[in-house]
Amino acid sequence: MPDASPIKWHLGHTTWFFETIVLIPHYAGYLKFSAEFSYLFNSYYESLGPRQPRPQRGLITRPSLSEVMAYRAHVTSAMKYWMEQSNAFEKIVDLIALGIHHEQQHQELMVTDALHLFSCHPFLPGSHLNVSIAPGPETLDTTPKWIQFEAGLSEFGHALERQFEFAFDNEQPRHKRWLDAFEISSQLVTQGEFLAFIRDGGYQNASLWLSEGWSWVNQTGATAPSYWVPANSPLNPREDWHVYGVHGLQKLILNEPVSHLNFFEADAFAQWADARLPTEFEWEHAFGHSEMCQMQGSVWQWTRSAYEPYPGFQANTGAIREYNGKFMVGQQVLRGSSWATPKGHARKTYRNFFPPPARWQITGLRLAKDYK
Amino acid sequence: MPDASPIKWHLGHTTWFFETIVLIPHYAGYLKFSAEFSYLFNSYYESLGPRQPRPQRGLITRPSLSEVMAYRAHVTSAMKYWMEQSNAFEKIVDLIALGIHHEQQHQELMVTDALHLFSCHPFLPGSHLNVSIAPGPETLDTTPKWIQFEAGLSEFGHALERQFEFAFDNEQPRHKRWLDAFEISSQLVTQGEFLAFIRDGGYQNASLWLSEGWSWVNQTGATAPSYWVPANSPLNPREDWHVYGVHGLQKLILNEPVSHLNFFEADAFAQWADARLPTEFEWEHAFGHSEMCQMQGSVWQWTRSAYEPYPGFQANTGAIREYNGKFMVGQQVLRGSSWATPKGHARKTYRNFFPPPARWQITGLRLAKDYK
Amino acid sequence: MPDASPIKWHLGHTTWFFETIVLIPHYAGYLKFSAEFSYLFNSYYESLGPRQPRPQRGLITRPSLSEVMAYRAHVTSAMKYWMEQSNAFEKIVDLIALGIHHEQQHQELMVTDALHLFSCHPFLPGSHLNVSIAPGPETLDTTPKWIQFEAGLSEFGHALERQFEFAFDNEQPRHKRWLDAFEISSQLVTQGEFLAFIRDGGYQNASLWLSEGWSWVNQTGATAPSYWVPANSPLNPREDWHVYGVHGLQKLILNEPVSHLNFFEADAFAQWADARLPTEFEWEHAFGHSEMCQMQGSVWQWTRSAYEPYPGFQANTGAIREYNGKFMVGQQVLRGSSWATPKGHARKTYRNFFPPPARWQITGLRLAKDYK
Amino acid sequence: MPDASPIKWHLGHTTWFFETIVLIPHYAGYLKFSAEFSYLFNSYYESLGPRQPRPQRGLITRPSLSEVMAYRAHVTSAMKYWMEQSNAFEKIVDLIALGIHHEQQHQELMVTDALHLFSCHPFLPGSHLNVSIAPGPETLDTTPKWIQFEAGLSEFGHALERQFEFAFDNEQPRHKRWLDAFEISSQLVTQGEFLAFIRDGGYQNASLWLSEGWSWVNQTGATAPSYWVPANSPLNPREDWHVYGVHGLQKLILNEPVSHLNFFEADAFAQWADARLPTEFEWEHAFGHSEMCQMQGSVWQWTRSAYEPYPGFQANTGAIREYNGKFMVGQQVLRGSSWATPKGHARKTYRNFFPPPARWQITGLRLAKDYK
Repeated sequence: MPDASPIKWHLGHTTWFFETIVLIPHYAGYLKFSAEFSYLFNSYYESLGPRQPRPQRGLITRPSLSEVMAYRAHVTSAMKYWMEQSNAFEKIVDLIALGIHHEQQHQELMVTDALHLFSCHPFLPGSHLNVSIAPGPETLDTTPKWIQFEAGLSEFGHALERQFEFAFDNEQPRHKRWLDAFEISSQLVTQGEFLAFIRDGGYQNASLWLSEGWSWVNQTGATAPSYWVPANSPLNPREDWHVYGVHGLQKLILNEPVSHLNFFEADAFAQWADARLPTEFEWEHAFGHSEMCQMQGSVWQWTRSAYEPYPGFQANTGAIREYNGKFMVGQQVLRGSSWATPKGHARKTYRNFFPPPARWQITGLRLAKDYK
Repeated sequence: MPDASPIKWHLGHTTWFFETIVLIPHYAGYLKFSAEFSYLFNSYYESLGPRQPRPQRGLITRPSLSEVMAYRAHVTSAMKYWMEQSNAFEKIVDLIALGIHHEQQHQELMVTDALHLFSCHPFLPGSHLNVSIAPGPETLDTTPKWIQFEAGLSEFGHALERQFEFAFDNEQPRHKRWLDAFEISSQLVTQGEFLAFIRDGGYQNASLWLSEGWSWVNQTGATAPSYWVPANSPLNPREDWHVYGVHGLQKLILNEPVSHLNFFEADAFAQWADARLPTEFEWEHAFGHSEMCQMQGSVWQWTRSAYEPYPGFQANTGAIREYNGKFMVGQQVLRGSSWATPKGHARKTYRNFFPPPARWQITGLRLAKDYK
Repeated sequence: MPDASPIKWHLGHTTWFFETIVLIPHYAGYLKFSAEFSYLFNSYYESLGPRQPRPQRGLITRPSLSEVMAYRAHVTSAMKYWMEQSNAFEKIVDLIALGIHHEQQHQELMVTDALHLFSCHPFLPGSHLNVSIAPGPETLDTTPKWIQFEAGLSEFGHALERQFEFAFDNEQPRHKRWLDAFEISSQLVTQGEFLAFIRDGGYQNASLWLSEGWSWVNQTGATAPSYWVPANSPLNPREDWHVYGVHGLQKLILNEPVSHLNFFEADAFAQWADARLPTEFEWEHAFGHSEMCQMQGSVWQWTRSAYEPYPGFQANTGAIREYNGKFMVGQQVLRGSSWATPKGHARKTYRNFFPPPARWQITGLRLAKDYK
Repeated sequence: MPDASPIKWHLGHTTWFFETIVLIPHYAGYLKFSAEFSYLFNSYYESLGPRQPRPQRGLITRPSLSEVMAYRAHVTSAMKYWMEQSNAFEKIVDLIALGIHHEQQHQELMVTDALHLFSCHPFLPGSHLNVSIAPGPETLDTTPKWIQFEAGLSEFGHALERQFEFAFDNEQPRHKRWLDAFEISSQLVTQGEFLAFIRDGGYQNASLWLSEGWSWVNQTGATAPSYWVPANSPLNPREDWHVYGVHGLQKLILNEPVSHLNFFEADAFAQWADARLPTEFEWEHAFGHSEMCQMQGSVWQWTRSAYEPYPGFQANTGAIREYNGKFMVGQQVLRGSSWATPKGHARKTYRNFFPPPARWQITGLRLAKDYK
């Protein structure tokens, strides 16, 4: 898939980020590992020179995995040595924190990209990923509730008040917004609920879908979330839907949050359920309320909010200016985090974003409503 | 171009709208003109049956223009007869108003689609459009000013308070929003200012562009707004840029608002000018201020706002439910109106919308800034 | 369709050919009608300057039909005047003959291109073409016979022996070939026979098809010749196959030659019939035999011969060098002529050619076999 | 590249061929290695069930190389055991020979596919292929001569007269053809000669090219054979053309046969040289003449002959019916063999074939002329 990258590339790229953003500009004694790697492992930084196009990353047979691991060891050693030797790094602690958060983002991408690659194999081979992380989204045995919030003026976004606190530029600045009264579900939508949508003809009912979403359904012939395999099909000769994941092909777990939906599917489900997606601000406002469940660590949650700059948004400066701001059109915000997100990475104000048709991430939804 | 339609189609489609939305469901005695026209002139209404795909509309050689005009006369007569005969139409006065506003929207599209068709001719023939409407955007001899607005809570959108007042569903309901303090330019960006952007290498400078915008520049090789023709080129052997329009190929008019930009170009210009696009709410808030010029009747103005449902948005019901709501993803809002917009059609709260790469509409921009 | 051109273009192009090939280089007093027309009406002559790409020919709204007709009158007058005035034209009588044969070729293309355009209309409107030419291929009530020919050395191609005789360069020179003994059918394959192929699952049986042909079947979903409309379908609610043609949608005529096949379909049918297509030399060798029927004036007949230069082939010189030779790769030869071919245009040695997937010409087949 | 396959796939596929064509149908005691491999390693045999599409072969991460090698060992053991144990194999010695020749064809493809994969690497890494085969085409220090052949009737193709002799079905039957008198060059066209073509503007001169070839030049921007790297370019900062090959990037060798041309380039070069390509029959007729050099073991030689069935051609029966016959349209014949062809694989009557635009094979040319 043109949107995914090989594992070897992720390993090289996150190290390249440290080398290019931290070591080369700030550590005078640093010896660059290889000029060629600067090209191979640049992702999308126009200001940092030409790069290998993503869809062709899979063609690179060299460097070998062991060369990439040597590159990683070289850069890690240099970082350690430099940080032990002087205090110079303290001036750029934000950059180092960014490098760490960047690597955490790629840790999740390695899981989702590898899962996607395996899913392309004609026989969906059993178990592949030796994941020491939590095995999937949290399930609940409780009934979801509608949690009400009153209208009012509130603050959103991150203020970066404490020392060594980290937030991406796209979460800033902290700013005021008015919210009308709303209700939001205490739980995520489950596989069982989504199965009901499918069985009720959700994928055949144009009136539930956004126009672009309906085009997507017709072009792709989609009839279920990504990785769901229908009953009585070549890959699943059994009598019920199965779903492919890190543990291979398995039965649906009806009370597990549904995952691998795109924005169109999430929005159509909400229409069908006579509800809507929450805005990213409603989600953030509800965060921390005692009755809200599965806010983090299960699946990323599509919101009805386009990914736009906050009022007063200032992009980072220098090369990392390109980190977030330049993607602020044509994408939708996701909130929360998933079972594959490294612990401690996400937070209440965290904004993830993907294009509306993207399905290969761990993405589900939670319902909301106007409160009258 | 796949996004444009032939004139004959517009003429048939606007009549089809009246026939299908007003006459057939509400006037019992109405005799349908032709079953085939229902197919040919449906634009995108899934609930109203199958339709001719837009890119193939140009292939329809039948019905002839005279048949389409007969269709129009038939429907107009039926409307007149029905409205003179009884008061039944009063119950659906909103639908009739919608039909009229719909036709007004297509009046503008006929201008922009015809201009696009002529622009594809290899010799850009001189004058084509016998336009009785204003000949182009208003020019100003004054210097633009930054107009300041304080932070605060305000109301936006249309409340539909008076009888017979009309507004589209996407402008409703009236609702509160907080705006931070901002400045907005009293005038539109001109051709002369945009020429300075071009000469300063604007189309070659990746750092000014959104990521999707930069891809668009590289894929299309764009170096100027649509219809601008460089000097010393086959179509323009003269020594300065020319621009193609309803009056043929002409010199730039440096104080005329620049037009036929897409969202990417508008956003890149704003970056270059050390400013930004206004949000649609900043634009609406500034509307009516005595110093604001060229708010309507010149060019549609790209905003930094994605086209999203307002809080509490309720789509129309029935077939016209599909009029606006289903397009609310992946598009940007434009405010104001253009010299080709029929008089009385637009208003302060009017929301036009197009995908970010669209250039064949009469679209320009106005700058804004945070006010500190 | 990218391969077809509007009628107006054909009318202008055949006149352009006379102007550019005959008048401008050979008649000193000739006044060119319009510099722009040289661009608009060039088809594919690289040596004669740039040209309008074929797929965009339909976008040219100007010149109008009356301007094109004026162009035709201008060139015809100039030709007449020049030929009456002096004998100079006698030196280039071959070029004039080429211009006439070229126009005859476009007369047939106007029929097939217009038919294709009408076939794209969503309702296949009834009768369009006011054809004064024969209404379709000749039908026969006789049973086809296998006609045998012995092995031997023969001559093929045109020798241009008599004064004022005309043949294209691709039919020359006359040359020797050895043919093994073969049998060839006295008649063309009929609609009835092709219907049997369809009913026997011909379009579902990979073993009958060339590899490229099978890909074509799978990509297009073809299940019948072009313009055949299955029973019980939206356009044909009747209980039997119909076929669309110059007289509108009609029942199959079972003993009429099948038409609008591409090379893949012709070859697959022959496989199914336990036979093969004749080579173009077998066809030419059989021409004139008293028992051979429907050799001309019915449908063009696909042969098993790729379109290659004859031994000793010399292309014309000058601009008309590009007439035939540069297409001699990737195409198959068709022999005979069709009901839409102008009388007197074709001959025994005539070589028509189209790419294997082309279906919009009047193309059918005749079977052959090795004779043992 | 969609036309190339990974090495692992070639290794599996050639073994699959033996298993599927020889062992399963003919050796009753054979135990199939894996049902899944039948799918993964089928190339294009419609009659042998579904298969992995070629462009997606690179996505298969499983089976691993060691599993594929185990598969090879399993099948080789079974073949040995069976052939030692009984004489049953003698009845299908032709099939076994076909399996061996099939594997030899893939040996050459592994060289050309690997070279192509390495050529996609952004830095053209030095030396990759540990080739024990001859290092490249033979060079000659002699001047090429025109060798003349008289007109006459001759025989072509393979007669399969001796026991255990092998030839593909596409080389049969032996049959008569008339050849006009011709001249053919004693040597292959060299890199030096091709460089002269480039320097004379060959890639910019439409009149030298077939129509499809000129489209190819314009679409691809080609300016030299595949793997040639221009001087003063990012990958070749030196002052002369270099060429990439199994030994990395190297200077041109002016008297070495030019390679990695497609049919269009070969034909255009011949036009430029005031000659033409030989037909495949002229080539075969000249084979064995004492003065003809570089007929085999250097580069495959494009001919002017489309790949067509010989008179009386009978495809193999059963699954191997699909081996050759179904490709007999839209391709050109190449004669000879290359430095990467396994010794003993090719012969005088051998017919290789590729589509006209293919360049990743080891393909060059030899000139011919009519002899008058």
